[in-house]
Amino acid sequence: MVSARINGERLRARLEELATIGRTADGGVSRFSYSPEHAAAVRLVARWMREAGAEPAVDAWGNLFGVVPGDAGTLPPVASGSHLDTVPNGGIFDGALGVLAAVEVAAAFHDAGARPRHPLLLVGFAEEEGTSYGVGCLGSLGVVGRAPAPEALHDAGGRSAADALRAFDTGLPKRTVPMPMAAYLELHIEQGPTLAARETPLASVDAIVGISRLTLEFVGEANHAGTTPMDVRRDALWGAADLVSAVRSLVRDTGGRAVGTVGRLVVSPGATNVVPGRVELVVELRSSDDRLLAALRERVDGECRACARRYGLGLESRAWRMEAPVPLNRSIHDEIEAAAHDLGWPLVSMSSWAGHDAKILGAVVPSGMIFVPSVDGVSHSPRERTAWDDVGRGAQVLCRAIERIDRGQAA
Amino acid sequence: MVSARINGERLRARLEELATIGRTADGGVSRFSYSPEHAAAVRLVARWMREAGAEPAVDAWGNLFGVVPGDAGTLPPVASGSHLDTVPNGGIFDGALGVLAAVEVAAAFHDAGARPRHPLLLVGFAEEEGTSYGVGCLGSLGVVGRAPAPEALHDAGGRSAADALRAFDTGLPKRTVPMPMAAYLELHIEQGPTLAARETPLASVDAIVGISRLTLEFVGEANHAGTTPMDVRRDALWGAADLVSAVRSLVRDTGGRAVGTVGRLVVSPGATNVVPGRVELVVELRSSDDRLLAALRERVDGECRACARRYGLGLESRAWRMEAPVPLNRSIHDEIEAAAHDLGWPLVSMSSWAGHDAKILGAVVPSGMIFVPSVDGVSHSPRERTAWDDVGRGAQVLCRAIERIDRGQAA
Repeated sequence: MVSARINGERLRARLEELATIGRTADGGVSRFSYSPEHAAAVRLVARWMREAGAEPAVDAWGNLFGVVPGDAGTLPPVASGSHLDTVPNGGIFDGALGVLAAVEVAAAFHDAGARPRHPLLLVGFAEEEGTSYGVGCLGSLGVVGRAPAPEALHDAGGRSAADALRAFDTGLPKRTVPMPMAAYLELHIEQGPTLAARETPLASVDAIVGISRLTLEFVGEANHAGTTPMDVRRDALWGAADLVSAVRSLVRDTGGRAVGTVGRLVVSPGATNVVPGRVELVVELRSSDDRLLAALRERVDGECRACARRYGLGLESRAWRMEAPVPLNRSIHDEIEAAAHDLGWPLVSMSSWAGHDAKILGAVVPSGMIFVPSVDGVSHSPRERTAWDDVGRGAQVLCRAIERIDRGQAA
Repeated sequence: MVSARINGERLRARLEELATIGRTADGGVSRFSYSPEHAAAVRLVARWMREAGAEPAVDAWGNLFGVVPGDAGTLPPVASGSHLDTVPNGGIFDGALGVLAAVEVAAAFHDAGARPRHPLLLVGFAEEEGTSYGVGCLGSLGVVGRAPAPEALHDAGGRSAADALRAFDTGLPKRTVPMPMAAYLELHIEQGPTLAARETPLASVDAIVGISRLTLEFVGEANHAGTTPMDVRRDALWGAADLVSAVRSLVRDTGGRAVGTVGRLVVSPGATNVVPGRVELVVELRSSDDRLLAALRERVDGECRACARRYGLGLESRAWRMEAPVPLNRSIHDEIEAAAHDLGWPLVSMSSWAGHDAKILGAVVPSGMIFVPSVDGVSHSPRERTAWDDVGRGAQVLCRAIERIDRGQAA
């Protein structure tokens, strides 16, 4: 079996060129959904899609997609891609790698004169980061029919997504992303230190973690920090501090099967000489094991009550906001594993601790993800980096896996 | 010995009238230094000073003062007062009580046709709360020659205290508060729950607590709250939470001889899905025992290092800002005690856990303070309250103590 060969130099050059659109002073990228930069990125990638034999269009959510016709009549497309938007001052790989690798796969087929049996669907989703409208994976949610109405979403300046989409000028025809799909494959940087620590260049993702978030407030009594004796204080920060420690220790007890974070914690009134009367905080838990997540939520609830009781505090707790873990498709996972094996490269299986468009697609389409290492695990930063060899290997495994799926499912 | 009798009804009526200047929607008072409300308050109290036989003036720091001439030639004045400014939406007693009680003492002498041997110096200090310029007791620091230059102080809007003082229109002559003083006595609400809990209407204050404050930052690494495994995290909030608990427990071990507070704590970047990279916080310790304060500072320093080490965090710590405890004058303390005894009212001795103008004056003038109970210990709030009987008793003890000191030191 002779694979189509991706062109690592071309992929690198394109990643670097795309990174000039929205480049920040310290070498990062700020490319927000439906901005002029996003439109410029769409036009540039659409050009590369055309060169690879795909006909580009945008859909109602500003998702760029291009279709390479298949050879075998009416088969559903094999899709691949990722997102074109970035966090503020983000890196050049997050999202862009998956989009350009998909285009590179089509280009490799094109260069080899090979025609796929299934149509190849190349996608550059919009607003995966949720930076502008607060809803992560907005573009892919739109594709699967689960996005909120664009009229209901507003950016920090108060402009609706509907208005922004009307002004989003890509020069491309408006079409609907074809559904159903035979498969969806996404190459992405890991954004964590696991692969780098294992010195393994590749992973096939078995599941995308579920995320549970609890917003709560400990309510004590704001009082004079001098005249209020310790034994009559109701210091809301005492409860919050104990909860931070409890979350750490509960999650550590899972032996790596979950993570937990208190990333937001706000003390009121927040004055040096006033006993904290209120502390609002958010507990976030992640795991790919839904039952473990449920057990952790219950234990965190118990700790909240215990911390409040310990210091005579009130507890105002909203309901948990939950996204369930999404297991990725087992046979796609195995095809990715086999593709790496075909190419002679080591590959491990791991869960994704971050959300991705594949999590949304994965609910309705057999989906898989390939991870390549992030240097020092850094992402969402101008310091985000992946070795170019790893970039090339990731794209080649994506290409090989798509070939396998294209042939296998046609058989 | 027949005392001058203060007029409790008049004192109450004046406290209520003064409280209308700067009244807030929920019944509190916002009277900021050098504001039009402050100037109106100065004009009103100056009128009452004149009625009590005192000639009013303001000094370079906007302190209102009035002098009732003494009968015995060139004796230094016996001074009494407190401050006219308030915290935002503060109560009607904090500061105002001590100023109007001093005026009431002069009025009681005046009504009785009694002439003091010493001049009586009545004072309404400015900017005790530090609300506008961030320096507590600014007015009294000015009187003792320890205030920063008004050109160097700016309010939140960037206006200098020098400019505000130039525009501070009271219609009164500008003079310097006379120094030295024979004594300074201040009646104040306790602002804590101690007297109310003991069901004792009066205290003579033996010392004003020292305050030590440490601003520090735990520096970890902001990182993705999903992709960063627990065992490689450097979560700055983990260290901060442990320190909050350590401060509570260190201070509780003193058995009521100190209090300690973390009132300000700010988490950065403060996003739900980002591991906290930095936490800035302020530890405040208070005690009237200087050696105990020193020992606590050392133990807090040790805990900061231990918390940082435990989680691999950096520690950026400024120097402690320290105000030493100020013991009040023993013989003034005893005259206050004797005054309550003369009147047949119980009185206890206690430390003040809050700073006061008497702390500043106390460094250079024999000073004493009288506390009356705060209902539920509440202060710096529209809910601040002291029973009117307690207000009257406090003013009468102040009057009696001033009589004793006036006669005793003349003898």
